[in-house]
Amino acid sequence: MFRILLGWRYAEETMAQIPRVVIVGGGFGGLSAARALGGAPVEVTLVDRRNHHVFQPLLYQVATALLSPGDIAAPIRWILRGYANVRVLMADVVRVDTAARQLVLADGGTLPYDYAIVAPGASHAYFGHDDWAAVAPGLKSLDDALDIRRRMLTAFEKAEGEADHDARDRLLTFVIVGGGPTGVELAGTLAEMARRTIREEFRNIVTSRTRIVLVDAGPTILPSFPEPLRKVARESLLRLGVEVVEGTSVSAIDPNGVQIGGQYLAAGTIVWAAGVAASPLAATLGVPLDRAGRAIVEPDLSLPGHPEVFVVGDAASFQQGGTALPGVAQVAMQGAAHAATMIRRRIAGQPTTTFRYRNYGSMAIVGRGSAIADFGWLRLTGFVAWLGWLFLHIAQLIGFRNRASVFLQWAGAYVTRQRSVRLITGRPRDIPAGSAQGGADAREEGAR
Amino acid sequence: MFRILLGWRYAEETMAQIPRVVIVGGGFGGLSAARALGGAPVEVTLVDRRNHHVFQPLLYQVATALLSPGDIAAPIRWILRGYANVRVLMADVVRVDTAARQLVLADGGTLPYDYAIVAPGASHAYFGHDDWAAVAPGLKSLDDALDIRRRMLTAFEKAEGEADHDARDRLLTFVIVGGGPTGVELAGTLAEMARRTIREEFRNIVTSRTRIVLVDAGPTILPSFPEPLRKVARESLLRLGVEVVEGTSVSAIDPNGVQIGGQYLAAGTIVWAAGVAASPLAATLGVPLDRAGRAIVEPDLSLPGHPEVFVVGDAASFQQGGTALPGVAQVAMQGAAHAATMIRRRIAGQPTTTFRYRNYGSMAIVGRGSAIADFGWLRLTGFVAWLGWLFLHIAQLIGFRNRASVFLQWAGAYVTRQRSVRLITGRPRDIPAGSAQGGADAREEGAR
Repeated sequence: MFRILLGWRYAEETMAQIPRVVIVGGGFGGLSAARALGGAPVEVTLVDRRNHHVFQPLLYQVATALLSPGDIAAPIRWILRGYANVRVLMADVVRVDTAARQLVLADGGTLPYDYAIVAPGASHAYFGHDDWAAVAPGLKSLDDALDIRRRMLTAFEKAEGEADHDARDRLLTFVIVGGGPTGVELAGTLAEMARRTIREEFRNIVTSRTRIVLVDAGPTILPSFPEPLRKVARESLLRLGVEVVEGTSVSAIDPNGVQIGGQYLAAGTIVWAAGVAASPLAATLGVPLDRAGRAIVEPDLSLPGHPEVFVVGDAASFQQGGTALPGVAQVAMQGAAHAATMIRRRIAGQPTTTFRYRNYGSMAIVGRGSAIADFGWLRLTGFVAWLGWLFLHIAQLIGFRNRASVFLQWAGAYVTRQRSVRLITGRPRDIPAGSAQGGADAREEGAR
Repeated sequence: MFRILLGWRYAEETMAQIPRVVIVGGGFGGLSAARALGGAPVEVTLVDRRNHHVFQPLLYQVATALLSPGDIAAPIRWILRGYANVRVLMADVVRVDTAARQLVLADGGTLPYDYAIVAPGASHAYFGHDDWAAVAPGLKSLDDALDIRRRMLTAFEKAEGEADHDARDRLLTFVIVGGGPTGVELAGTLAEMARRTIREEFRNIVTSRTRIVLVDAGPTILPSFPEPLRKVARESLLRLGVEVVEGTSVSAIDPNGVQIGGQYLAAGTIVWAAGVAASPLAATLGVPLDRAGRAIVEPDLSLPGHPEVFVVGDAASFQQGGTALPGVAQVAMQGAAHAATMIRRRIAGQPTTTFRYRNYGSMAIVGRGSAIADFGWLRLTGFVAWLGWLFLHIAQLIGFRNRASVFLQWAGAYVTRQRSVRLITGRPRDIPAGSAQGGADAREEGAR
């Protein structure tokens, strides 16, 4: 009651005897940390710029209009409502002031801590070509997914009303840069949509002639999978009509198309799935970073020189077996649980221990009823892998009330091949005015 | 095939022998017109600025985070995919050129017609105070609903992190201007959310103390309902803690609050549900308009002097029994069906007939398990009316695959009192920079 009347920033002072833990980020890492500290003798504050957690492995399904945002996201404070010692603050952390032991917020406020778990994740990286961001959006947030959905659906709408042959071909050309799981999943589901779902809805274009090009600068798509599985994925994509271009880098992107190796391809929609870099917050920690901008952490995941700060997930660089751990949900969740345990141990006066990641396997979906899965001891392809993927992902939507809804949507989409949420909403963002894309997108905005 | 290669604008010329019908708008009127002309000996083109139809009576449920946009909207071309003689064009009509018999599009293109059904609907009207639009958004489109949802949810988030008592009170004050069904439904569901749904998720504010004020300049809320039903609605709102202010007009709105009669009320969120005006397209028709900007039409719904143009729905002014028909879905749908029949009759060389609207009744929902319904011969209140409202609205979601999903969401929300889609997405729009609201909203945007 006292805290309610005074507001938490004042209450903070009066409760200093209880260790204050701040968690930066409400992704897989942040949520796992908060849950692991629920009921511990600490006061936890989780800070995120957004009010919701996103189940990122399914973001591409929002981008391709198969699921609604609400199916793969939930308010962070709803997820954590049961933990009385955890509070959630929607705010933008701009700096971790490790010297003063406080978070600095964008509005100028500060949040002091005794322990911090920093799990801010990663964002797209354009490798020195930040101007590409406006033309080739990446896929990291719900807003990104809705932006890509809007662009893809708008391209078909504009092609239907376009009389010029070349302009129509350009609008019906989609380039996806980056052949990791996200790129492969986007290309596969986009191909399904174009060739099957929306086919009979258009009168003047043949959507099945849509050109979808998946480009990767590396020697192969899906580099983290063994070659036999990659081969299956490549064949599935080709069967869906996706052109897979490997070992060729994109050297220029403009509003009208993409330079792929020696060839310029006119394209109406370009999506960036090529690279990520750690959150800029990692650079404020004052420790050495690796090439991806991640903070190099101690064996117990703490910050060198600051045993009270732990960095987990995509913002941490941690070597195990000679290689850095990948930026996947499992690494973030296991790391966050470890960091929470370390805080409990330190409060109890015990020494910290070395983090050890256990890899349970990886999966990627290639199209309707087709996936690849690598569990180390077992490799699956095709429909069986797809079913496994489906049930694992639905099972992991824990803490969401959305499981039944997602299952219904998927079952419905599979049976009817229909996309349920093909809605063009929101305003175009970051599109250069006067460009071919900008001009027509602006039309969507005009008031009537 | 020929049409596919040349694009429809050229194909248009070659098929001039078949009468060309254009329909402006994909709302209740436009869709009904297209369906009624499906299979008729005409070439139909439906033009809408958006790619989707919205089930407007449920928009307030998206604004209050009970339903997802995909639950109450569907792509227009998907709804009409089965009609081979109907095509859909996403474009912005800026003018109906009745002299040249063509639609003029925002991109400069034109669309010639032999018959036109103009059903562009209405938009919010601020009665000469267009500057209020930025602070007090109205509720007409999905984007409007997502904007209001973002503002409401952000207000609670900001209040949770606010130390200043007065600032917190302001953030927890919501003013809804306009006591028609939309205003009443918004106020009621917002009260439910604040007092029940999100209560246990906050640590520093008491959301059940949220102040919700519903203001109407007229002598009573819900003026189109009989007084006994209004009384029930008023009592339900009071029980939910909504302050109902009748007979008092709003004289000023700024980013910090509202001037209601002689009193200034500091408010963090203001929603405009007070008035609508016909689409500006009505003014391009070159005929006299009524005070709400609607085109005054002939008894057969055609335009004076232009028997080949019909205006239906919110953009038409039609007198029946001494009063103008209201701007509701039933009027638009019945009018559109009549216009379609008139076109069929004219093609068959038969005279047109007078339109006659049949009123099947009206309903409004007041809160969880409470509604009012007026069928003329029967009046219902409370849980029975609410059940009736529920089933009528679910039944009317015809042509959507969403019925099961909506029912599940509602059932889930009713049982658990949880809001499933409390996501803050998108960018704030039209908020004056530097205002109290703008400053903090901008935070949501900052890149991390």
